[in-house]
Amino acid sequence: MPDPLLSGIIKSQVSQAAAYTLTHFEADVKLDQNESPYELPRELKERIVRRILDRDWRRYPEFVPHETIRCLSRFTGWVEDGILVGNGSNELIYATLIATTGPGRKVVIPQPTFAIYKLMASILGADIVEVSLRPSDFSFDVDQIARAAAGADVVILCSPNSPTGTLLPRRDAERILRAAKGLVIVDEAYHEFSGQTLQPLLDDYENLVLLRTFSKARAMAGLRFGYMLARPALTVELQKAKLPYSVNIFTLAAAEMAIEDNPALDDTVPLLIAERERLRTELGRREDIEVFPSHANFLLIRTPHPSRIVFEALYAKGVLVRDVGGYQQLDRALRVSVGTPEENDRFLDALDQTMEGIR
Amino acid sequence: MPDPLLSGIIKSQVSQAAAYTLTHFEADVKLDQNESPYELPRELKERIVRRILDRDWRRYPEFVPHETIRCLSRFTGWVEDGILVGNGSNELIYATLIATTGPGRKVVIPQPTFAIYKLMASILGADIVEVSLRPSDFSFDVDQIARAAAGADVVILCSPNSPTGTLLPRRDAERILRAAKGLVIVDEAYHEFSGQTLQPLLDDYENLVLLRTFSKARAMAGLRFGYMLARPALTVELQKAKLPYSVNIFTLAAAEMAIEDNPALDDTVPLLIAERERLRTELGRREDIEVFPSHANFLLIRTPHPSRIVFEALYAKGVLVRDVGGYQQLDRALRVSVGTPEENDRFLDALDQTMEGIR
Repeated sequence: MPDPLLSGIIKSQVSQAAAYTLTHFEADVKLDQNESPYELPRELKERIVRRILDRDWRRYPEFVPHETIRCLSRFTGWVEDGILVGNGSNELIYATLIATTGPGRKVVIPQPTFAIYKLMASILGADIVEVSLRPSDFSFDVDQIARAAAGADVVILCSPNSPTGTLLPRRDAERILRAAKGLVIVDEAYHEFSGQTLQPLLDDYENLVLLRTFSKARAMAGLRFGYMLARPALTVELQKAKLPYSVNIFTLAAAEMAIEDNPALDDTVPLLIAERERLRTELGRREDIEVFPSHANFLLIRTPHPSRIVFEALYAKGVLVRDVGGYQQLDRALRVSVGTPEENDRFLDALDQTMEGIR
Repeated sequence: MPDPLLSGIIKSQVSQAAAYTLTHFEADVKLDQNESPYELPRELKERIVRRILDRDWRRYPEFVPHETIRCLSRFTGWVEDGILVGNGSNELIYATLIATTGPGRKVVIPQPTFAIYKLMASILGADIVEVSLRPSDFSFDVDQIARAAAGADVVILCSPNSPTGTLLPRRDAERILRAAKGLVIVDEAYHEFSGQTLQPLLDDYENLVLLRTFSKARAMAGLRFGYMLARPALTVELQKAKLPYSVNIFTLAAAEMAIEDNPALDDTVPLLIAERERLRTELGRREDIEVFPSHANFLLIRTPHPSRIVFEALYAKGVLVRDVGGYQQLDRALRVSVGTPEENDRFLDALDQTMEGIR
């Protein structure tokens, strides 16, 4: 940042930060963002749109979106006072960090994980304590995390973890929750694919914050909707750091109707789990591919070649995956979302051709 | 905050802050949030909804919404690299403050003004320097603001100012911009009703940040859309403090189509200005009502009675206004949005009955 004026105005943790950017790629087979390959049924989309058409767009949303929160309460079984809705779960993580961290405060982040956590905590000026996942299988190093948590203000855990697919078992989460001096945020963005949620722990741990999103299993990444579950006493404090009216009337209506009128959406989850396991078995048969177990809707693979070369070769064949070779410990690794059976077959074909071509 | 765990976890500036809340009132005549009384044409809403129906809701929005930014660039005449879009302009103010303030940093805020500025700056731990508007006419005290700006990291100006309706003249803005050590944020939420924008100053002042919203003149408060104009070198830094994907595909499409396909929307602005002036003249005829000049789509009035009593009496007659009697210097004041001619007449009738009833 050479500009002398700006260097005084912008905080150093911001000017020194690299911007989080994502180059836009178009591809026939898009397996790079862990989106659902199954669009919501047209009939449901039409009903959502009809509902929104009759609402007043010129009016602000309700200050507290009670109807949506009631839906989420029925859906999760958690109390209304302990639910916050957000413009994607990212907004809720950011608000939680704003309320709890800053210069002189410590945030524990296992690595490798979703890059945004570290980015947000850095921008807020927090001291970041990174704890490596175990190199053998990318499992959480619970001893180390618990030790770090004892001296930290916030711990951010992603379970199942992106981009490794690792699940944090419930007993390990409890060890961290007991050891933690401060908050433990668990991002359950992919929990539907793991069969586990830590929601039962909310009764016992007042320092637990659970985050969920409609961007993955619920196939609504374009509409930006996430929610938080926590104890009411904590929720009221975290809400103060969040802007009002952050979820618009369209997304509120869509979220309500998706929960209430479309239980069938859950049919896609077993399908995707079955495809993940098929894909993993297929990949496991290939000698030069290392594939890691996953509890999410993606797989982490490693090849003998630089990940950028494999990424580019796949992309040239119309298959877009995520190059995660730059993440800690993930040299030569790629993350591939589970798609439809046809998309997964196209990925396998493209991968085989790629490996053949490099050899 | 009696909870010993939470008091350690939540930063003191958060736990000590009062939550920004708004009690939900239903009313026939809703003049409390400076929304437009004119809904978008049904035909435009239908076209927006048809466009969104054909998009993939399961896909994330573009990382940078180029098409929307191109529209805004054509619409404003400002360079694409100097435009950020946000989930309402609030999100952009918050991101700007995150990038520039925090403990030990000073934020200048004239008072009375939109309450969210102080709330956001407090949550972020900034030192807030409040400069009172002139008691006589609520004009900006430019000498004092310029003096404070010389030692501050950020100045937040709302022009026209809510809830007073005051405009900051361009030459006064320039004095503040020249004196300021740091950023000057000008929230132009109501600029369409004033005939003035400070956009021409962007060429000369690299510390100027302009904010706009679609919630007022553009009648889309429910969809949450705002944008920022600033110099590209500043924009790139402020963007780092903002979450990606904060505007969803529905709102992006609606904003694009509202700009491109609906210039007629601007017809409502002269209507509302004419009604504001009619309402002001009418109110000026009433002996016990003081009414202040306004450059926005609302009027500030003062009666001899406690504002809560007047508010409640109006509400009992089906007219909802904003009680601003608790703001600095605004004892016994109310803010009333300009509605349709019929709504404004209903407000005048209800006010006359109210004043009669109290006397």
